[in-house]
Amino acid sequence: MITLYEFGLSGNCHKVRLLLSLLGLHYHSKLLNSAAGEHKTEQFLALNPFGQTPVLVDGDTVVRDSQAILVYLARSYGADEWFPQEPAKMAEVVSWLAVAANEIARGPNTLRLHHKFGRAINLDDATKITTQVLSVLNLHLQSRHWLANNTLTIADIAIYPYIALANEGKVDLEPYLYVQNWMGRIEHLTGYVTMPGIQRIAD
Amino acid sequence: MITLYEFGLSGNCHKVRLLLSLLGLHYHSKLLNSAAGEHKTEQFLALNPFGQTPVLVDGDTVVRDSQAILVYLARSYGADEWFPQEPAKMAEVVSWLAVAANEIARGPNTLRLHHKFGRAINLDDATKITTQVLSVLNLHLQSRHWLANNTLTIADIAIYPYIALANEGKVDLEPYLYVQNWMGRIEHLTGYVTMPGIQRIAD
Repeated sequence: MITLYEFGLSGNCHKVRLLLSLLGLHYHSKLLNSAAGEHKTEQFLALNPFGQTPVLVDGDTVVRDSQAILVYLARSYGADEWFPQEPAKMAEVVSWLAVAANEIARGPNTLRLHHKFGRAINLDDATKITTQVLSVLNLHLQSRHWLANNTLTIADIAIYPYIALANEGKVDLEPYLYVQNWMGRIEHLTGYVTMPGIQRIAD
Repeated sequence: MITLYEFGLSGNCHKVRLLLSLLGLHYHSKLLNSAAGEHKTEQFLALNPFGQTPVLVDGDTVVRDSQAILVYLARSYGADEWFPQEPAKMAEVVSWLAVAANEIARGPNTLRLHHKFGRAINLDDATKITTQVLSVLNLHLQSRHWLANNTLTIADIAIYPYIALANEGKVDLEPYLYVQNWMGRIEHLTGYVTMPGIQRIAD
């Protein structure tokens, strides 16, 4: 039995929902109320001392952090391609997981926190990082269908949600055609699920 | 032949130097001059479009991003424990790699960029994140010798450098006894290497 502790409007949680669905896995959702501080209770901090969602519980295994959960699900339940064992291919995927944890978090995710949730941020910094990461992604995807290893991997799943939610951070994806095409490919996958706020490219 | 493109004063590069040394691997160092913009040349951007160090080249394999390089080296040249194949154990390590890419980068690393290199930052935010991550680490290490799986892994190598350099960001590690003890254990490892600015705990 898989249980996912999550926030409904979190893009990090959506990474996990998306992979669970693409892998055809059933799970029990525990929606936490962030306004009520349910992610800061003693009980939840025992699962994740950082007090953040998502946390996934699978039997005796507790995994915190969206990137770590993607790795866990891919290696436990997915075909090898999702997170390949071969070192160079595995590292290629990890390099994009790091972009998700760093540039995507400090760029489009931070802009969304500001414009949607009122968080005070350094607007110039977040805008600059967003422009850089979108430019790199667009150039990278000009000659590729997927971010890593010429196949669908958890790299795509880790990067997708906060790009698809970028409109909520007042980011215009219009200049990034190849990013849009890649989003469309993800949105056509069997098992794709959306969430409130996602600006789908596909019809 | 392994080549490491690096900055001498980068903690991210030191993660890689440290693991290379602990694994007993020889490599060729290409020190880039950041003031001269050697990380923004067309030649270097072809290796890493983000224009960041470290980048590791091993034969035909090019790996960018410090966390990805640690994964590559561990799976290519290290014992299984460094980055274990078992999904739950692998995910446990990845959850700390994400802390390195996120909280450590936005906390102690950012404070060091400010105090050592004059970067304009949000001092309150970086201080708050630093205090939180050090508190979580200290509590976690109160009952453990290593961050993940009760053994030395690349999680320790990914987190260590910017904690050991925290003094350059005017962070006082005095309240974090278990973090200091853990640093001491790393500094006693056979093959441990230091870098300018590291405040060693071990004698």
